[in-house]
Amino acid sequence: MCRLAREKWTATRYWEPPGEVMARIVMKFGGTSVADIERLRHVAGRVAKIAGEGNQVAVVLSAMAGTTNQLIEWTREMSSLHDAREYDAVVSTGEQVTIGLLAMALQEKGISARSWQGWQVPIRTDDVHGSARILEIDGADIIQRMEAGEVAVIAGFQGISPKNRIATLGRSGSDTTAVALAAALSADRCDIYTDVDGVYTADPRIVTAARKLDKITYEEMLEMASQGAKVLQTRSVELAMNHRVRVQVLSSFNDTPGTLVVDEDEIVEKAVVSGITYASGEAKVTLLQVSDRPGVAAAVFGPLAEANVNVDMIVQSASPDGTSTDMTFTVSRADLPRVRDILAQHRDAIGFQEVIADGDVVKVSVIGVGMRSHAGVAQRMFAALSEKGINIHAISTSEIKISVLIGAEYTELAVRSLHSAYGLDSA
Amino acid sequence: MCRLAREKWTATRYWEPPGEVMARIVMKFGGTSVADIERLRHVAGRVAKIAGEGNQVAVVLSAMAGTTNQLIEWTREMSSLHDAREYDAVVSTGEQVTIGLLAMALQEKGISARSWQGWQVPIRTDDVHGSARILEIDGADIIQRMEAGEVAVIAGFQGISPKNRIATLGRSGSDTTAVALAAALSADRCDIYTDVDGVYTADPRIVTAARKLDKITYEEMLEMASQGAKVLQTRSVELAMNHRVRVQVLSSFNDTPGTLVVDEDEIVEKAVVSGITYASGEAKVTLLQVSDRPGVAAAVFGPLAEANVNVDMIVQSASPDGTSTDMTFTVSRADLPRVRDILAQHRDAIGFQEVIADGDVVKVSVIGVGMRSHAGVAQRMFAALSEKGINIHAISTSEIKISVLIGAEYTELAVRSLHSAYGLDSA
Repeated sequence: MCRLAREKWTATRYWEPPGEVMARIVMKFGGTSVADIERLRHVAGRVAKIAGEGNQVAVVLSAMAGTTNQLIEWTREMSSLHDAREYDAVVSTGEQVTIGLLAMALQEKGISARSWQGWQVPIRTDDVHGSARILEIDGADIIQRMEAGEVAVIAGFQGISPKNRIATLGRSGSDTTAVALAAALSADRCDIYTDVDGVYTADPRIVTAARKLDKITYEEMLEMASQGAKVLQTRSVELAMNHRVRVQVLSSFNDTPGTLVVDEDEIVEKAVVSGITYASGEAKVTLLQVSDRPGVAAAVFGPLAEANVNVDMIVQSASPDGTSTDMTFTVSRADLPRVRDILAQHRDAIGFQEVIADGDVVKVSVIGVGMRSHAGVAQRMFAALSEKGINIHAISTSEIKISVLIGAEYTELAVRSLHSAYGLDSA
Repeated sequence: MCRLAREKWTATRYWEPPGEVMARIVMKFGGTSVADIERLRHVAGRVAKIAGEGNQVAVVLSAMAGTTNQLIEWTREMSSLHDAREYDAVVSTGEQVTIGLLAMALQEKGISARSWQGWQVPIRTDDVHGSARILEIDGADIIQRMEAGEVAVIAGFQGISPKNRIATLGRSGSDTTAVALAAALSADRCDIYTDVDGVYTADPRIVTAARKLDKITYEEMLEMASQGAKVLQTRSVELAMNHRVRVQVLSSFNDTPGTLVVDEDEIVEKAVVSGITYASGEAKVTLLQVSDRPGVAAAVFGPLAEANVNVDMIVQSASPDGTSTDMTFTVSRADLPRVRDILAQHRDAIGFQEVIADGDVVKVSVIGVGMRSHAGVAQRMFAALSEKGINIHAISTSEIKISVLIGAEYTELAVRSLHSAYGLDSA
């Protein structure tokens, strides 16, 4: 009973600033935070502070900024079609250097610490080398040592495959390692230290009135990551959501509290709209005079799906004469040349007059879990854009997101107008 | 019976140039041979040639020249008294990069290959981190793959401790890895590729008439390594001798055959003297007027031994009056300041008038297994030096070696004279 009471207390007090309550915390630092000996010492100072407050701490590190790129460059020089297993053996070494050095720096400060490579934990992955998925983390050994006061310093980005080879998780894999580890260790929180100090209502470089959010739901964060916000990668947010890992995004360069990514239940006052994002790198494709017959959508999108082209927004205009229509959709701008090729190859099967492509577009999204229970959110968006004379090329929605495709030149105007329209501007 | 016959045949044909007989060969390349992508490609070419002739090949690599020093420098910057286990975790990464890249380069040439880190083999060591000893190598997996035609590319210098931590073998550890692996794999030969093309009768930079030896015995190589020849480290020669691993020293930059280090039985015509070496870095210490009483040698050398100072040659002059004598011995020049301190601390216990130290000396040695069965070898040395007016400060001998301590300014003269005196000059 005592134990239950204590657990409840921990849970309700959970969102206090770090350090006030003894907790188990995973701290993750990226490449710029560990770029040299001096910055590693600074990281050691931050870890020592949290550990010194009586918390159990596991640290996940990336390689020094630039190291992994150098290693990747060597593998490219050596062989254009290289063995992904050997690629992983080479590019996983950067993290092994930083974890050893940080363990030393912590010991220098009188903190008990040891480094852990992926295979030592072990962090078990599948054998899709270069972009492996974590299957299982055995945290028993680390938990025992954390309970004895030792800080675990763990290599991000890497694990061990079923065949005993080192496997890397792909870009931003260290965030994934941190979140998965937090789940395996039943950590109270996973703190992701970055070069920004949290998640904002909009990109502060565009909207000076943008505010840092104290809390955001997993679902919102996921939409934001998908819709252009670069703070966290979609994959690590998904993992956090699936395992209900409390994630905090905060700056490694200052001491201000960051943004907590949490379950919807933990946010009492849900904002209708939490943030405005924009994604450039989109392209609009229009097929003119597509024959309006059953199966034509499959004829267009089947070949694109086969070629792994992601199609996002789709608009089909009404067919005025009942025989042909115009079809508009968006793809990643990088895919545009392939899309043109594929459409040309399938021109006869699809039946259209002409392809028009426009790379000068941007997708602006408003995101918020509160819109589930509020009517008129979309209408306010369309009104705000219309008021500024911004034409909407396409619309797509999810339960907690409305996206519109507009001309790229309107990006800043649209984001600022929407930020004001939804009452997000700071006082 | 067939099998025995074949084995005998392999044994007698053993010393043919590489490639003529199908064999199992360990090839080891040092840091300068793998210093960049281009040199790694060159190494891949050499490996591909040997493998392409039908031999089973395992390759042992060092890190790119300079890499390990950079890693060591970082550990020093981070902490002066660092945890040796973390030091090992950091400095072992250099080899992991080169093995991955070489495996890629071999695959690019159509050769089946994979990289092996120490823990993957596994190469089991003790837990003396930074200078661990290999306890056991499980070569079963590698042998199976070699028999199936796969080249094993193995990280030198590293293994795994009983506690599942990476342990490094210390400087020149990659040679040790190669020899130990050759023993574990029952390899026919261990080829050590270096920047010289073999073992010479004397340092060719001093003696232009020096000849490359085709063969040399383990015992001679061991004395040469101890007495200043830098081709192979003592430790790897000892290991080769203990496990009767046939070692070849050869150049990674040209195709000439190197020097074979073999059992004495395999050399039919044993030279009286195989080589002349010199070791600078020695220092002569003389204690004047040491009291001539029982136990005085223990009083001098006991404290030095406790402080891990290696004392080499010892000369005690006859005591003219029966009460005091002069005592001369040599130590490593790097130890000289410590030796002075220790002697000063124990001055009362020992009882001497003065310490005179001379760092301007060199030890010249003549080495050869043939001197066991030949008289007059030492006499010829003393005569040759005397003829050139070179004064001998101290003498020490082993069964196959005579060393003299002389003034450093006579080094070249002494080495050249002895090289001629023992008939070693090339025609």
